Amino acid sequence: MKIAVLGGDGFVGWPTTLHLSDQGHEVHILDNLSRRWIDTELGVQSLTPMDSIQERTRIWHQQTGRKIHFHLIDIARDYEILKGWLAEHRPDAVIHFAEQRAAPYSMKSDRHKTYTVNNNVSATHNLLAALVETGIDAHLVHLGTMGVYGYSSVGAAIPEGYLPVDVETLSGDKAEQEILYPTRPGSVYHMTKSLDQILFQFYAQNDGLRITDLHQGIVWGTHTEQTRGHEQLINRFDYDGDYGTVLNRFLIQAAIGYPLTVHGTGGQTRAFIHIQDSVRCIELALGDAPAAGERVKIFNQMTETHRVRDLAEMVARLAGAEVAYLPNPRKEAPENDLVVRNDQFLALGLNPTRLEEGLLDEIIEVSRKYAHRVDRSRIPAVSAWTRELGAKVERDPEGKKLKSVS
Amino acid sequence: MKIAVLGGDGFVGWPTTLHLSDQGHEVHILDNLSRRWIDTELGVQSLTPMDSIQERTRIWHQQTGRKIHFHLIDIARDYEILKGWLAEHRPDAVIHFAEQRAAPYSMKSDRHKTYTVNNNVSATHNLLAALVETGIDAHLVHLGTMGVYGYSSVGAAIPEGYLPVDVETLSGDKAEQEILYPTRPGSVYHMTKSLDQILFQFYAQNDGLRITDLHQGIVWGTHTEQTRGHEQLINRFDYDGDYGTVLNRFLIQAAIGYPLTVHGTGGQTRAFIHIQDSVRCIELALGDAPAAGERVKIFNQMTETHRVRDLAEMVARLAGAEVAYLPNPRKEAPENDLVVRNDQFLALGLNPTRLEEGLLDEIIEVSRKYAHRVDRSRIPAVSAWTRELGAKVERDPEGKKLKSVS
Ligand SMILES: NC(=O)c1ccc[n+]([C@@H]2O[C@H](COP(=O)([O-])OP(=O)(O)OC[C@H]3O[C@@H](n4cnc5c(N)ncnc54)[C@H](O)[C@@H]3O)[C@@H](O)[C@H]2O)c1
Ligand SMILES: NC(=O)c1ccc[n+]([C@@H]2O[C@H](COP(=O)([O-])OP(=O)(O)OC[C@H]3O[C@@H](n4cnc5c(N)ncnc54)[C@H](O)[C@@H]3O)[C@@H](O)[C@H]2O)c1
Repeated sequence: MKIAVLGGDGFVGWPTTLHLSDQGHEVHILDNLSRRWIDTELGVQSLTPMDSIQERTRIWHQQTGRKIHFHLIDIARDYEILKGWLAEHRPDAVIHFAEQRAAPYSMKSDRHKTYTVNNNVSATHNLLAALVETGIDAHLVHLGTMGVYGYSSVGAAIPEGYLPVDVETLSGDKAEQEILYPTRPGSVYHMTKSLDQILFQFYAQNDGLRITDLHQGIVWGTHTEQTRGHEQLINRFDYDGDYGTVLNRFLIQAAIGYPLTVHGTGGQTRAFIHIQDSVRCIELALGDAPAAGERVKIFNQMTETHRVRDLAEMVARLAGAEVAYLPNPRKEAPENDLVVRNDQFLALGLNPTRLEEGLLDEIIEVSRKYAHRVDRSRIPAVSAWTRELGAKVERDPEGKKLKSVS
Repeated sequence: MKIAVLGGDGFVGWPTTLHLSDQGHEVHILDNLSRRWIDTELGVQSLTPMDSIQERTRIWHQQTGRKIHFHLIDIARDYEILKGWLAEHRPDAVIHFAEQRAAPYSMKSDRHKTYTVNNNVSATHNLLAALVETGIDAHLVHLGTMGVYGYSSVGAAIPEGYLPVDVETLSGDKAEQEILYPTRPGSVYHMTKSLDQILFQFYAQNDGLRITDLHQGIVWGTHTEQTRGHEQLINRFDYDGDYGTVLNRFLIQAAIGYPLTVHGTGGQTRAFIHIQDSVRCIELALGDAPAAGERVKIFNQMTETHRVRDLAEMVARLAGAEVAYLPNPRKEAPENDLVVRNDQFLALGLNPTRLEEGLLDEIIEVSRKYAHRVDRSRIPAVSAWTRELGAKVERDPEGKKLKSVS
């Protein structure tokens, strides 16, 4: 297959690209490298020493003889270039990772909010409009997030995308109708994924586009089979307060002997998946495309759920560290349960890597190994969801400004 | 009150501005005049001879001694200018009409699709982000559309915004949860209104913004009490295939002795409201703001429903004309029922103008009076929802190309 990977230079995009190239597919990366620019803006860098995309693809070719093609395209701003590229290359499948993906970054300031909305909505919509315009019948696989559902529902198990509801008909009878599972996003970033859903629903219905939307949990882990192949193929590892996921920041804090900082009570439950499983799920989804005219296929792409404080304790125990509790910069329920259905991927043969098992590897092979590269001032999460929360977060429990650590 | 009317130069915005100015409010129009530019792009003009916004406001001042302030601002593209304007003027209320509002225009080509999405999403989101950033506690009243719900539901009466659903909790009990009434938009334009809903839900929840969303039916009629005051205060009347609503096009066809063209069977049921009632509803909604922290208030702003073929027959009977049936360029169910709840506005004292009563006025005072200004080649609706429908629509029943009429 000829596959376009939009956002293929990113944390999930890069190992996915290698995995698919390894399987013999012709893979093209389309990326505007905005994520690297954001590192520059924030003054942070990947814990792992990450090479340029040009260098990475050169090494891959040298190691395997396989070619990965890279195209510098901003799919949100350069609609005509994207359309021209699609018309020329006519891919069989398009995997769409190309969005601003950090909730804290999306809440930093009004500039970050408008950037995230404009970038993500235009990226997704441009792609859909261009597929219709070029008449390419490619299977579109998009990465969404579990976070669209919010974490404050009455606690039902989150189904895979759709919810049957009973409505009263005009004649007064009850009839069942299937709706998109209602979303209640908790950040501007999550909100954009909720908007994406509606774009997909429309284009599947109006134009028969074949779309799969993967509602992914938090991805953890760094290496996959292919990124281990050469040190210059290494994957990105974000640990800063904006892009570092909760688990990555715990790992780094443990590695540098800093207490693990839990925001609020740590009672928030989150869904997780290992990067190797994420890559495998994308492969499985690619092979299971909906038919034209079929509704959007939605999978929950996660393998286990944990409370944040339990994660902290797991890392603390394995790495020998302490846990500290800080005010929460996010507007969210202090405690929540989360049960997620993921029957579809299990049925397709997914065999998950468990956190409990993979975590020690991360500690030894990644966080301790590269601990000398950590800028400790970048670990605290300081982007606040509202002005009042911002005022609270700027002070740590002893009243010293957290921001002044930096 | 100091009121900002975004899109105040438009068909609903202009009479709303006059109505509120007449009541003594300090009204500021913010508009980028894109609607006038689109007239130029399409080579069409309002049936009624419409003056420039500068001239209109001058006449209003001359007639009434009241001042309407006009500011040329693109709220989708000039975030910083919008924010600066809000910070300086600190309005008590903001009425948001500033979106591309024609479904056929939004489906014309990929350029029109991306324009509509980028313009409408950015306009709404910029406004929300700027209100949060400037800390202005203005009541935001937005014009949405009945069309977000689609017309292919199982036929339940459309409630005002929210739907209670029963979900299973983790403990296995049933619990009731209230969700946004699920949308199934039928065009790119309608889809943007569905996206707006999610933006509103988020900003009301995260930042306590006070928002009212008016899900409006098709607005008919031209004059309001204030636009009648002087011929240079006249309102816009669109009759072209893209912006002309179904009723306006029937009126024009009757006036020039052309058969009334019904697309498909004419079994589509639509919701309507007279422009005078629309203006009055906005006034009522302004006076009934939600509290901070309250969910978005949603009203259905319509007063009656009709099938398209019944409308055609009503106009044909009153004006003496024939009805012709053509292929439908829209992807939609050929027939649908529609029942809409509008209890909230009735409770607030709305006393609707009925189509049956107001229609003759429109025929005599508007469509016949200005019939000499009609460009008949612009009446057919030629924007097709999909390529296949496009091929069908280009030919009329006798096989002549409809487009070649122009
Ligand atoms: N990492 C996670 O834990 C996680 C969890 C759930 C969902 N996801 C989703 O998976 C996808 C990939 O996540 P990631 O962690 O790899 O993110 P990432 O930021 O590392 O990668 C995204 C890539 O897209 C590119 N990009 C962004 N906007 C673009 C544009 N307009 N044009 C071209 N390229 C553009 C960036 O340069 C970057 O290389 C995202 O959509 C994200 O929302 C990630
Ligand atoms: N007319 C109807 O039948 C109807 C029905 C339902 C809902 N609505 C909604 O009511 C609102 C007003 O409708 P209308 O018929 O008056 O439309 P209109 O096109 O006549 O007016 C919209 C105005 O907004 C301005 N505008 C658009 N984008 C802008 C931007 N980025 N910055 C600044 N100004 C911008 C245009 O120049 C125009 O003056 C729209 O949001 C529409 O969706 C209208």
